[in-house]
Amino acid sequence: MKVAKFGGSSLASSGQVKKVVDIIKADPERRFVVVSAPGKRHSDDIKVTDLLISLYEQLVAEKDPHRLIDAIYHRYEEIGTAFQVDRALLEKIHQAIQGLTSLPIKDNPHLYDTILASGENNNAKLIAGILKAQGLSARYISPQELGILVTDEPQNARILNQAYPKIRKWRKNPEILVIPGFFGITEEGNICTFSRGGSDITGAIVAAGVNADLYENFTDVDGIYSAHPGIIHEPELVEELSYREMRELAYAGFSVFHDEALIPSFKAKIPVVIKNTNNPNHPGTRIVHEKQKNDKPVVGIACDRGFTMIYISKYLMNREVGFTLRVLQILKDFNINYEHMPSGIDDISIIIRSNQLTEEKEEELLRKIAYEIDPDELRIKHGLAMVVVVGEGMRERVGITAESAAALARKKINLAMINQGSSEVSIMFSIPEKDEKAAIRTLYYTFFD
Amino acid sequence: MKVAKFGGSSLASSGQVKKVVDIIKADPERRFVVVSAPGKRHSDDIKVTDLLISLYEQLVAEKDPHRLIDAIYHRYEEIGTAFQVDRALLEKIHQAIQGLTSLPIKDNPHLYDTILASGENNNAKLIAGILKAQGLSARYISPQELGILVTDEPQNARILNQAYPKIRKWRKNPEILVIPGFFGITEEGNICTFSRGGSDITGAIVAAGVNADLYENFTDVDGIYSAHPGIIHEPELVEELSYREMRELAYAGFSVFHDEALIPSFKAKIPVVIKNTNNPNHPGTRIVHEKQKNDKPVVGIACDRGFTMIYISKYLMNREVGFTLRVLQILKDFNINYEHMPSGIDDISIIIRSNQLTEEKEEELLRKIAYEIDPDELRIKHGLAMVVVVGEGMRERVGITAESAAALARKKINLAMINQGSSEVSIMFSIPEKDEKAAIRTLYYTFFD
Repeated sequence: MKVAKFGGSSLASSGQVKKVVDIIKADPERRFVVVSAPGKRHSDDIKVTDLLISLYEQLVAEKDPHRLIDAIYHRYEEIGTAFQVDRALLEKIHQAIQGLTSLPIKDNPHLYDTILASGENNNAKLIAGILKAQGLSARYISPQELGILVTDEPQNARILNQAYPKIRKWRKNPEILVIPGFFGITEEGNICTFSRGGSDITGAIVAAGVNADLYENFTDVDGIYSAHPGIIHEPELVEELSYREMRELAYAGFSVFHDEALIPSFKAKIPVVIKNTNNPNHPGTRIVHEKQKNDKPVVGIACDRGFTMIYISKYLMNREVGFTLRVLQILKDFNINYEHMPSGIDDISIIIRSNQLTEEKEEELLRKIAYEIDPDELRIKHGLAMVVVVGEGMRERVGITAESAAALARKKINLAMINQGSSEVSIMFSIPEKDEKAAIRTLYYTFFD
Repeated sequence: MKVAKFGGSSLASSGQVKKVVDIIKADPERRFVVVSAPGKRHSDDIKVTDLLISLYEQLVAEKDPHRLIDAIYHRYEEIGTAFQVDRALLEKIHQAIQGLTSLPIKDNPHLYDTILASGENNNAKLIAGILKAQGLSARYISPQELGILVTDEPQNARILNQAYPKIRKWRKNPEILVIPGFFGITEEGNICTFSRGGSDITGAIVAAGVNADLYENFTDVDGIYSAHPGIIHEPELVEELSYREMRELAYAGFSVFHDEALIPSFKAKIPVVIKNTNNPNHPGTRIVHEKQKNDKPVVGIACDRGFTMIYISKYLMNREVGFTLRVLQILKDFNINYEHMPSGIDDISIIIRSNQLTEEKEEELLRKIAYEIDPDELRIKHGLAMVVVVGEGMRERVGITAESAAALARKKINLAMINQGSSEVSIMFSIPEKDEKAAIRTLYYTFFD
């Protein structure tokens, strides 16, 4: 049994929804359908979620919202009408959108979440109605009824452990259940949304809850590429990735998923497949707990920019107990997360994301380190990119590092850092940002052709 | 003006002392002479320091010490007689050794240090007498008179900052001053020794104190080799090393100096030269603050065994603020120092020296990590060696990493870890202990021939 999640672009228009209906019809195993709000139909379009954000702003500013309500409703109406759904359903959706205007504005911490969640909620009702109109046994189910119980943290809800046994009870349900993504219900019955990428989380939660055989994530790409198509012409598509490989790639800019979205399915060891709504016969990219084969040592090459390196050197630093602890404590005091911390004998480099620093904060931080650590040398280097060569297959193959380093050396790309932990799922190279494209190209053509 | 330190093997016999006298005579700049206690004359011999340790043990056990006293005195007598020093001086040394037996044994925290320090102290008196007998203007000076003031930490004394201006006053002294190495005097007038390798520390302290142009460290090798002569046949001798290069090599088993011995001369930026008493015309190896030239990218290859790697992996670990802090805190609670901590996206490897773990401690540590961190994966790997490729010249040369990794790959040596911080003074590879020799050989022949 499968959980199928459809993203906003897959549900943006009646034409797109037709493809979704066909996908659901094609496989009776697709019994849990998670939907986003209607997305963009073309690049200049406005997503329903963004219309709802505007609605929220207008309500708070006490402006007349009626044109926005029309615009939002129109999106559902366009789709529903094409499928000749019951007028009563469309009327219900219209009323639900209008009902948002009478929510209490003051002292209502759930206002924003409730308005935004309506985008998915109304779409789930609509899609359920469409499936029914197409002769399928389908119905809308609310997160409350399904049991998606979350913490009371507006815009940042986390699933509660007691949710899973509640969701599990729906496993044997004979109908196709259409579930709105993006939000859950608190124990007090309030709506709280997940952080960005939230519909993916809902899919992963439902898949874990009902112990699905597969979590299908339908989007608008054929899968995950082994390198960025903007840099490499027609890069290979990855057939199968382990969760850890996916995560390493996601870290360095492969933004198919929000980082945290897959935790529930990862923990429940449920495989995920990324498929294209517009090309559903393509097998897509599977993300699995344990890969069946590792015929390729490298599955992908990713790169991310915007890193800064702080270099601290002190003679015999190595002998000072608690030295790193003190450095980390300083970072924590400045609320700075570090990414990596390669060390020599008497030096340590701290790599952080540059967006955590302002000019002023940087100056204060360096002053603090100079004062507390009294280093022999203290330097900061901006404008670094992090290139990651990813692949579980590396475990079994000596020499990937040598080949990678040689490829970068041939292009005269200087390495500020190399980091290869014992996992060997990835090797990371820190290089100047200006060399990003050259680095990805030389590495790609070293491991793929 | 130079500070010359002579090690135990350089002072082991009258024949060796003759070489030392010639060295001192050869250069009037050698005005501060630091001496160890007489060392081994041949491989089966016992060093005076080890005889003194036995003396201490006998005294504490209330056994008759007179044969040991004779044996110790005999060493000084043999040397002194050969140079026809004043009998009164030898008698004074004899009395000083006998005097050790009347030191208070109970509640005397300085007993061990006082007995051991006498080895150097008597030798300084003897060598001063010999130099005088050879017509040089020389005299013994005690650490107290010179101003080597130290903390009251038996066997682990640290120099006090106020010592340096006191020592500085002797800079213009016209005589050759002969100084016993290995110990200093506390503010209460007690003797405290430095930790092992202590005569080197005395030399470095005196060199810093008098602001010497050079600190000459006379030993029984021509200098520092670029790799271990037990593994590489006739390895190259290093002409010049920076302090940092020396330190990186020392870390991984190049045991010419005790790690901390050179801190005073490092801080005072005084160059050090390692020379051979048995081959004084050889230029030796210079250790300098800033190297004049970096014509060779790699100066040495070292390796040390006995490392253990703890691998912790947890999905999305990267997002947990303070994660590393918690891991380090656990290590601190177990009083374990870590050496390196390479990280992936969701994993971290902690490399420690294995001698910090017992089977029981290891089990407890892993249990604690499992409990506090709740990792997805927790593994421990013993029997690792750390190979270090060292050279300041790497800063200017791309590709050393690639060449190193390729050399190891050719020999099918697996890398558990690579660590290259931003300093680029060294690259570290963690490999199985069994591959140590093969790794050093392949790396040596890659960078030297």
